[in-house]
Amino acid sequence: MKKVTIIGAGLVGSLLSIYLAKRGYKVNMYERRGDMRKAEMSVGRSINLALSDRGWKALERIGIADQVRKVAIPMHGRMIHPLEGDLVFQPYGKDKQAIYSVSRGGLNRLMMDIAETNPDVNIIFNQRCTGLNVAEGLTHFYDEEKDKEHAVHSDLIFASDGAFSAGRLHMQLTTDRFDYNQYYIEHGYKELTIPAAPSGGWAIEKNALHIWPRGKYMLIALPNEDGSFTCTLFFPFEGEPSFSTLKTPEQVKEFFKSIFPDAVPLMPTLTEDYFANPTASLVTVKCFPWSAGGKMTLIGDAAHALVPFFGQGMNCGFEDCTVLDKLIDKHSENWPAIFKEFEANRKPDTDAIADLAIANFVEMRDKVADPDFLLRKKIEARFTNRHPEKWLPLYSMVTFSHMPYAQALAEGVRQEKIMDKVMAMENIEARWDSEEIDKMMLDLA
Amino acid sequence: MKKVTIIGAGLVGSLLSIYLAKRGYKVNMYERRGDMRKAEMSVGRSINLALSDRGWKALERIGIADQVRKVAIPMHGRMIHPLEGDLVFQPYGKDKQAIYSVSRGGLNRLMMDIAETNPDVNIIFNQRCTGLNVAEGLTHFYDEEKDKEHAVHSDLIFASDGAFSAGRLHMQLTTDRFDYNQYYIEHGYKELTIPAAPSGGWAIEKNALHIWPRGKYMLIALPNEDGSFTCTLFFPFEGEPSFSTLKTPEQVKEFFKSIFPDAVPLMPTLTEDYFANPTASLVTVKCFPWSAGGKMTLIGDAAHALVPFFGQGMNCGFEDCTVLDKLIDKHSENWPAIFKEFEANRKPDTDAIADLAIANFVEMRDKVADPDFLLRKKIEARFTNRHPEKWLPLYSMVTFSHMPYAQALAEGVRQEKIMDKVMAMENIEARWDSEEIDKMMLDLA
Repeated sequence: MKKVTIIGAGLVGSLLSIYLAKRGYKVNMYERRGDMRKAEMSVGRSINLALSDRGWKALERIGIADQVRKVAIPMHGRMIHPLEGDLVFQPYGKDKQAIYSVSRGGLNRLMMDIAETNPDVNIIFNQRCTGLNVAEGLTHFYDEEKDKEHAVHSDLIFASDGAFSAGRLHMQLTTDRFDYNQYYIEHGYKELTIPAAPSGGWAIEKNALHIWPRGKYMLIALPNEDGSFTCTLFFPFEGEPSFSTLKTPEQVKEFFKSIFPDAVPLMPTLTEDYFANPTASLVTVKCFPWSAGGKMTLIGDAAHALVPFFGQGMNCGFEDCTVLDKLIDKHSENWPAIFKEFEANRKPDTDAIADLAIANFVEMRDKVADPDFLLRKKIEARFTNRHPEKWLPLYSMVTFSHMPYAQALAEGVRQEKIMDKVMAMENIEARWDSEEIDKMMLDLA
Repeated sequence: MKKVTIIGAGLVGSLLSIYLAKRGYKVNMYERRGDMRKAEMSVGRSINLALSDRGWKALERIGIADQVRKVAIPMHGRMIHPLEGDLVFQPYGKDKQAIYSVSRGGLNRLMMDIAETNPDVNIIFNQRCTGLNVAEGLTHFYDEEKDKEHAVHSDLIFASDGAFSAGRLHMQLTTDRFDYNQYYIEHGYKELTIPAAPSGGWAIEKNALHIWPRGKYMLIALPNEDGSFTCTLFFPFEGEPSFSTLKTPEQVKEFFKSIFPDAVPLMPTLTEDYFANPTASLVTVKCFPWSAGGKMTLIGDAAHALVPFFGQGMNCGFEDCTVLDKLIDKHSENWPAIFKEFEANRKPDTDAIADLAIANFVEMRDKVADPDFLLRKKIEARFTNRHPEKWLPLYSMVTFSHMPYAQALAEGVRQEKIMDKVMAMENIEARWDSEEIDKMMLDLA
């Protein structure tokens, strides 16, 4: 029985452990933190996650989607909260399509539980990875409870230890020609909250992702099962206004009252939350290669951390597991071949979703409130409905399809050029739903 | 008297120590390796360096240029060795302009000697930096001779410890929102040698940088004082041909005979050198910020490692010292202000030279043998000679001026657009030196 070491018992590590145990591997998963199921460990910076088709597929493939569905809340579209005027609902896709709000902590606890039902998965906590010796199959850990170092031997090593991966640091320090890029956007984020309505239930529309788009920044809210919403303020670190200029409870209150007026009455602990919760940064990580010595690979955020604006971080990490699992079949457990094809196949796609995630921030915080953008989306939606075989909008390709991300990105660029031509037509506002435009798009698409 | 710690006694560290000691700082410089002046330490992978105006200026400013001039060999242009036909000499600039070949090791030893003539500079060897505590002003070292860790306290810390800087690793691991990018090109390099002619002296033209451009790869040779040339083969790691395909002495010999036929008779130890010397990789590093806590900064390759194809790595690092020295005056030794302006001012320029260095590889290995490119250069040279106030070629802006690199890059892009128009003129081969072209360029420039 082959032994596997997984570094990091997060979402991707937990899912991977289930996949590998089902194939008969003996999996030991080492987690830096304590067991989050035994203690309240919220650190006030969990963006709620949006599970979508790629994530669901990975869960279905291993037979655990139904368990997850019980804790997931469908969001059928964006609910836009403009500064003035009425709410606007923008569906994400067709009638039954939705993305699903899940709590990162809740889902992680559930997946650890599922993993541990398999006798071949063992999770060991408080283990900080301090180094690897891939040639010898050794992973070194510092046991924070016992205050001592130890080494673990295994046949395979997976580093699913997140955006600040110790496994990746090992690659950086020991692999010649390791390309590595980590970059931050100028915005940070802060978790805030809308509690359940006093009468119980959700204070605003439950089945939507709420956005307060304000050009350079935005507030969002995702529903939780208990009636509350987890809110996230995406806001510049510096400049006017920014995290650096809101220094007192009065300033925060004033700012929110003038900029997010309909949210303030829903947020009784706004100023307390604002000052109690940390301001977290948003990193993108790209690197290559992911694997070493045919025995070890990075996976999930450790290989490709994304900013959260396309809701694809977890979905992309879960899709890693789907892709890897197919390659295990294809190469009949020839791991050097699996790792080589995994990184070669997956890298263009994870680069593409990283770039799409950055680009979608501009869409969410700014364009969703722009009349031109809304008209563009209306034209696209009409065309998609009439000619579904000709046109799948970029958001749908990423969210509701399994098309490789790089292909979705290329197709999105092609569509954008067509839409630029359409939008440049004279008097497009009046003619947008004409047969003429339909014909023009058919010719171009 | 303020205490300074410099990590790394390479070229930039040594120069910086002289600058700081002259201002009355007490400088302790910690070097990871042993004292290269006491033992032969060539590792067979030193590209010879080409000192040019920016480097000279930094040496002149502190009064040590004359000492360096004694070991520097002027190279007035490129000597192109085509696969067939005669050698072609391409001057780098105007009559007296040259870049200067120096041995990295020789120059480093000389600069350590000069640094140590100052009683306030102390170089301590075999000290591997293992970490920093900037707030406390502590730098941690592992003393490889004494086999023990120790910490050094100082008022200021400079990390001039090269492309794989321990100081920068500290920044990466401890600084939130630290942007970091290291990337490799697909080529590696290998040091080879042309010894002095049997009769003494140089076997090929002494005062030139020799290039054997071959499209996807190239061989270069720079003169040494002892009559030998240090040659460097820049060659792909993979593909056909590449380092991975030349596996036996016979294959190497055959390849060189067919591709670099005039070089082979000059290289009696070709196959021995080829297999004895390592194949080294070529990294570019960009990062930000460079400084921490107003007390510490990265400088030189630690802040901005370049590929060697514009001959600017050392010159750029030396220019760092010029820029820093001016800021010390400007801010009257207010170090937090100095470090802040240093990184803000310098970052766009070091990014620009990093990109220019990558681009110049294509020029050196490919374009210098292309008739269109040569005509382009001839037109540029004619125009520069007639209107020196209107046009300084990109190579000259980088090599023979002190214009900020970012400005040189922007100006180069502007010039390239003009030259594209000129080269697109019908029958330009016949009309290139006409008054008409001159007038056209005057209008555009």
